[in-house]
Formats: sequence, C-alpha cells, structure tokens
Amino acid sequence: MTKVAIQGEAGAFSHEAAHKLLGPDLRLVPCRTFSEAFEAVTIGEADRAVIPVENALAGPVVESLDLLWSSGLTVRGETRVRIRLCVSAPPGVALEDVRSVASHPVALKQCRTLFEQNPQMEPVVVYDTAGSVRDLMAGSVDYDAAISSRLAAELYGAHLLQTEIEDDHRNYTRFFELAAPGVGPDSPGVCGAVAVGIPNEPGALHDLLGVFSSHGVDMSQIVARPIRGEPWKYRFYMEIVAPDVEALRECLDALEEASDEMRLFGTYAPYEESESDEG
Amino acid sequence: MTKVAIQGEAGAFSHEAAHKLLGPDLRLVPCRTFSEAFEAVTIGEADRAVIPVENALAGPVVESLDLLWSSGLTVRGETRVRIRLCVSAPPGVALEDVRSVASHPVALKQCRTLFEQNPQMEPVVVYDTAGSVRDLMAGSVDYDAAISSRLAAELYGAHLLQTEIEDDHRNYTRFFELAAPGVGPDSPGVCGAVAVGIPNEPGALHDLLGVFSSHGVDMSQIVARPIRGEPWKYRFYMEIVAPDVEALRECLDALEEASDEMRLFGTYAPYEESESDEG
Repeated sequence: MTKVAIQGEAGAFSHEAAHKLLGPDLRLVPCRTFSEAFEAVTIGEADRAVIPVENALAGPVVESLDLLWSSGLTVRGETRVRIRLCVSAPPGVALEDVRSVASHPVALKQCRTLFEQNPQMEPVVVYDTAGSVRDLMAGSVDYDAAISSRLAAELYGAHLLQTEIEDDHRNYTRFFELAAPGVGPDSPGVCGAVAVGIPNEPGALHDLLGVFSSHGVDMSQIVARPIRGEPWKYRFYMEIVAPDVEALRECLDALEEASDEMRLFGTYAPYEESESDEG
Repeated sequence: MTKVAIQGEAGAFSHEAAHKLLGPDLRLVPCRTFSEAFEAVTIGEADRAVIPVENALAGPVVESLDLLWSSGLTVRGETRVRIRLCVSAPPGVALEDVRSVASHPVALKQCRTLFEQNPQMEPVVVYDTAGSVRDLMAGSVDYDAAISSRLAAELYGAHLLQTEIEDDHRNYTRFFELAAPGVGPDSPGVCGAVAVGIPNEPGALHDLLGVFSSHGVDMSQIVARPIRGEPWKYRFYMEIVAPDVEALRECLDALEEASDEMRLFGTYAPYEESESDEG
C-alpha cells in the first residue's frame, strides 16, 4: 500500500487530495510540518508526499515552493480540492445547543455567515481543522462543535450539523504529488514545474518569457522567491502548460539555454475538472 | 507632529523604518494588525502608515500588497531596515544567568548561534519582538531575557547583553510610507508601484513586460496576487525603476494602454543605501 506523507492530521484537505491522486487504498503518514512531510519521502518513510502549492484566495504556498527547491523531490502529478467546510458535533448535540465552535483561524474566518446566523456561537481558535474534530470526539476539550472537512468529521465519527458552511464557494487548493528524485510520471504530461535563475538586469525576465511565446507554451504560475544571502535577488518558480509533449520538451531545452540556471521539478498531466469541483 | 501608524508595538522594526522615513519627531500610532494600520490613515487617525512590503529572506509581505489594493492609500516613499537583533534583560542580569529568552518565533529561529553557544537558554515563544522586552521590563512575565531590536530594548530600559545576535547579517526588510489618497511625494521620483490586470491568455505577461523593455525601465519586483472570486486569475503587483521621471511617466501611460486595468499606487525616490545597511 502506498505510504503518503501529508502535513496535518487524517481528515485534512491534503488527505482528500491524496485520495484524489492515489485512490482509496493508501497508508497515511501524518506530519507536523511541511518540512517533515518532504523529509519522510527523502528518507523513504513515505513513497509520496501530497503538498498544497496554491490556494485560490491566499495565493502560492511559498514554503512548499522553497522546499521543492531544497529537497530535490520530483513533481509527479497535480490535483485540486474545493475547500468545503462543515460544522459537526458528537451525536445528540443539535445546532441550537452549540455555544462554542473550534477550528483553525483561517477556517473560522471563512464561515462568517454561520456565526451571523447563530449569534449564540463563540469561535474557538485551535491549530488544525482536522485536529479540532478529532479532539472534540476524543472528549479532551470543552468546546461543543468543530469546523473541518466532511472527511474529518466522518473519520472521527462526528455528526454533521450543517455542510458547505464556507462563505466563498469558489475556494480551491492545488496540491502536488511528490516522489523521490528520479521517480517520474507514469505517462508523459504537457505541464511542467520549473525554477529558473536569470541575470539581474533589465529585460531579463521579458527575454525569458519570450521563450514560452515562441514555443506556444502558456505560463500558468510565476512566483519570484528570494535567494538566501543575496538580498533582492530572485529565482523564478514557474508552472507551464504546452500544447503537446514535444513542445514542452523543446521549450524546456530552450529555457535551459536562456537562463543562468534551471531546475525541472517534474512534468505531469493537466488537472481535469470534475463535477465535485463546481462552486 | 506627524502621526504614524505601524503594525506592532513601539520599538518594532516598523518604528525604526518610520524614523528613517520621517525623522525623529513623530507620534506613533501602534496597531494590532496591518489592516488597522491602513484603516488609521483612511479615517484620519494617522497621517502616515509605515508598512513592511518585503523581507530579503521571506519574500513579499502579500497581506500588505493586498491592502494596498483594497485601501486606495498612496505610496509616498520607501526605506530599508537591516534586521539586527539583540538580547536584553533587566539591569543586573548577566548573560550566564539567563535560563529563558522570549521573542517572536521568526526572531528565535534567526538566532540559532546564540542558543548553541548558550545551551542553558530555553527559547520562549511570544507574539511580538518589541512586546517581549516591554512585558519583560513590566515584570509581568517569568522569562529572564528577550530578543528584539536595539530600539525596543532601549525604549523599555532593558540592559543589552549581546548585540547583532542574528545568524544572517544580510537580512533586510523594505517598508513603504503610505498616505491618504491624493497625498503625493514631495518631489517627483523615478520609482513606481503599480498593479496591473492583463488578459488571461498565453503571452500576455510577455507583451506587458515588453512595455518596460521598450522604455528602458527595470522591474524590481513582480508578485501575482489572486483575484477574489476568480480562481486561478491574477493581478500583477509590480515595482519599477525608470532612468528618469519623464521615462517613468511615458512607461506608465504605455502600461495603461497595454493592460486591462492599471492602478498606480505612487511614485517615489529610489532608496539610497547608507553605512548602517552594511551586512
């Protein structure tokens, strides 16, 4: 069974992403930090890591991108998860009985409507969405309900009081499937994730993007990351989508020519939207 | 006296930036959050806000960039502060007596050498660097020493035990001076901060950067920020430096032509490095 490292507890959105990427049969390796999830793959404790790289509201997860660079792990696939939140409680507790609701501060902020419609509810800040419902069901805390993914509520046996309570139904997170260096994709893909260093001079980025234009390749993401020890110098993290596998290969060759340094993290198939993604 | 809103307590690095931008005579308006510091200027409680926009190790402060867009405040000037940390304690406490040292987790992580050389010291996590020394000197906490800026240690009357304890002497933060809409710079500058929306199609960013190249204008910063409600669409926040004021004006006109939407946050003089910046 594939061992999959994620940051967070069972029931986290990364867990849901792992199921979308690798199917229902997997052994989860929950890690406290992103860094530990990368490390689990490096030392062979896990076969894969499933790591968030971008949220549609908050932007890129820069810690993941920096670890991609420093770890040397390979990007093998991509998926997206719609951030759906639910409020759950132990069986027998009704919504009107709930006085206190715990979750991660970001999740609490994304459920303003719930708190407006239920003024008797007090938000309680905890470190993790999935952890909030796990601790609730373990009986070790004194709040009445928790906000988490539906997966977490079901995993820990909580009763769903209300689903899709998030204010913004167009909130998604993108995840990468990562593997040890050298473990490539099962089949060639037209997407690529790269980091590129360019000369620190006017027009250098314009010239670099010209490589994409001339190969008909679209850039779907660009993030300038600072280079440690060289203040105000940057390495560009980019995701690109080519019309076909051959065009991607040619574009990557030309990119390497045009840049001071280039690292290809991996190539993968484009994510295909499904019904469950609809907002 | 100019009233200056900052996020954090007196003695924070934003306070030091405010002195560099506005001189020694200012009345500080400490705010709990970035959002409250912007709001203080909007409602006239403060004449200026001094806000971090980028750190040389961590990258852009995206919350500041998003608030720049939503608040409508004007960028009036820029400065840089070298992040120097010191450990301080109440008078009479020697370094070898210190068993526990409090600071913000990021500051604690940047002083590994101190903890390696003084294995008797335990780090204690608190919410703020300046707050750690203020609370220490108020006698309301049970740690022995605090890590903060020298300004904070001196403000609250702490005794400096060791200075420049940060592991990385090349750590800087860039700050903007912000004013109400319509309050422009005292004299024309060759730097500009803008946000630009472009069509979501291949080559659009390449075309946009072509405007800079053709006007001899350098782009010193680019950050793609998600547009709320439109997953995977971005607005580009950019900082540019022109050879002269005229070239900047012409470039901004051409940029407006070439983009779907453009917002100029302000123009300002380039930051001039001084001796105190040296690593």
